[in-house]
Amino acid sequence: MKPLRRAGKHYLGVDLGGTKILAAVFDDRGKLLSREKKATKPELGLTGVLQRVEECIHEALATAALPHTAITALGIGVPGLVDTKGEIVRIAANLGWHNVPLARLLKRRLDIPVTVVNDVQAGTLAVGEYGTGRGLKSFVCMFIGTGLGGGIVLDGQLYRGSTGMAGEVGHMPVIPDGGPKCGCGHRGCLEAVASRSAIVRRIVREIEEGRESVVTQLCDDDLTRLRSRILSTAYRQGDELVREVIHEVCHYTGIGAAMLINALNPQAVILGGGVIEALGDRMLPRITRSAWAHVISASPDRIRIKDTGLGDDAGILGAALAAQRSQL
Amino acid sequence: MKPLRRAGKHYLGVDLGGTKILAAVFDDRGKLLSREKKATKPELGLTGVLQRVEECIHEALATAALPHTAITALGIGVPGLVDTKGEIVRIAANLGWHNVPLARLLKRRLDIPVTVVNDVQAGTLAVGEYGTGRGLKSFVCMFIGTGLGGGIVLDGQLYRGSTGMAGEVGHMPVIPDGGPKCGCGHRGCLEAVASRSAIVRRIVREIEEGRESVVTQLCDDDLTRLRSRILSTAYRQGDELVREVIHEVCHYTGIGAAMLINALNPQAVILGGGVIEALGDRMLPRITRSAWAHVISASPDRIRIKDTGLGDDAGILGAALAAQRSQL
Repeated sequence: MKPLRRAGKHYLGVDLGGTKILAAVFDDRGKLLSREKKATKPELGLTGVLQRVEECIHEALATAALPHTAITALGIGVPGLVDTKGEIVRIAANLGWHNVPLARLLKRRLDIPVTVVNDVQAGTLAVGEYGTGRGLKSFVCMFIGTGLGGGIVLDGQLYRGSTGMAGEVGHMPVIPDGGPKCGCGHRGCLEAVASRSAIVRRIVREIEEGRESVVTQLCDDDLTRLRSRILSTAYRQGDELVREVIHEVCHYTGIGAAMLINALNPQAVILGGGVIEALGDRMLPRITRSAWAHVISASPDRIRIKDTGLGDDAGILGAALAAQRSQL
Repeated sequence: MKPLRRAGKHYLGVDLGGTKILAAVFDDRGKLLSREKKATKPELGLTGVLQRVEECIHEALATAALPHTAITALGIGVPGLVDTKGEIVRIAANLGWHNVPLARLLKRRLDIPVTVVNDVQAGTLAVGEYGTGRGLKSFVCMFIGTGLGGGIVLDGQLYRGSTGMAGEVGHMPVIPDGGPKCGCGHRGCLEAVASRSAIVRRIVREIEEGRESVVTQLCDDDLTRLRSRILSTAYRQGDELVREVIHEVCHYTGIGAAMLINALNPQAVILGGGVIEALGDRMLPRITRSAWAHVISASPDRIRIKDTGLGDDAGILGAALAAQRSQL
């Protein structure tokens, strides 16, 4: 994707997840100026969540010491289906939203242009512009976080599909006739075995069934606090349960990557999301091995499997980038 | 894809398979004027096979009552990897070919321009120009024949991937940790369970292990004669073994279709190849059911699963079309 350069402008990037809101200010070269975080609390309903988004944005502006008039545009990534104009959230299950005119609602509150994007597509944009996808004509992103989503770049462009649903790599069936039940209603989807939610569910269940794990202690006996960072610590301490589960995740993620490589023959498969940020150094070699055990007629030196190079910032950066592009 | 129209020209389309050679003459609107068939006999070696291709072409010309000077260009589809210029067959395992400069060799024999294409990509071209893919911006083809290959059309263009290997849908792992061994060396690839070769192998094995089937009698006790047409007859007569195997094929083909729909969100998945031509009316409803049991967030009325609308001619028609386009 071509780099965009305009002098002296600032953009807000918001990543609105089911658990947390991230808001950040970037300059027009994608440099992070400030970044703030807040719990989403979707139980507060639409107005409550919008209020929290607005607060988080004001905090990010304050940290960057910028007035809100210094912002050219705002991009917000949401975990759901967004209309092609970047205005309306059609469905966002984690937020309980249906047909929410998010761009209009935020514009009314903040009085700056707003672009709404799918969070994973935003991350993919950022990977193509500033991350390890830079300069590549074709790549596929897989983001392993609360869910597991993907973005596809072909001929240098984000490929959205005929109804905007392309890249649903989390719902490729990796255990077609069995496996755990997925949120989508089917069984054996990649997301149902390899997302952070799936990992946590499995570990909690095994601990409840009496299995020992250092995780219990790392969470202070409160397993609802189990996050990627704790998984990483437990893995690095050699915890058997966590290693077993993570290795299985690598196995299935590799199969998912292989499916995409076989179908699309991209230049790279790029992995991101909280789980990869925390454990990528350990997971990537295993994911790569599993992928190449399932790929046909292509060679590992031609198609790379790597991380985003952007750490936790892919989502907010991509949202800001979508805002920047909407102003061209 | 845009239709191509030029007045009064004729094109040769050849489909060079591991088992048979098809050669056909088309006018510039894709109308079939003649069609001939010959066994390939790859054991005769490169020169022997080229000799047979040439004979088959001469027979097709004779049937069409056209001199070979009436032909503007020839396209030949091969089951293998072709260079992007359409000149050299990099690898064609069924023919035992490696780096064969097929365009040059045939041009020397026939003295007309020659374009070499992958057979499945040729079929996909034909589906987009004359078949049920006509007018669609995005679709995925799956051809179930001796092997199982696919072609992907995005934004109205055949998508070849970064190294020309896109569309290897036969090697998507549908039974990732098991299943029959595939020719590619892996296990559980779609081709290893759903291609005609896989179907025949399975039926022959079960009959050898003592299972009853009407197939034995339909083949006059010579199971090497088991082809799609016999499978179709046995299926329609209610043969239990054949029905069981075909239903499993539908199940896994549906899973493969679902993977492609989830990843690419195309407007249609279009099925072709000998097995579908023989049994499509019975298989398509089952493949569709299986696909929709594994697809997320898209609706069957938006993404259709259908046959090519071209019968057995997709390969030769697509090869002729590739020749026609090469002359633009």
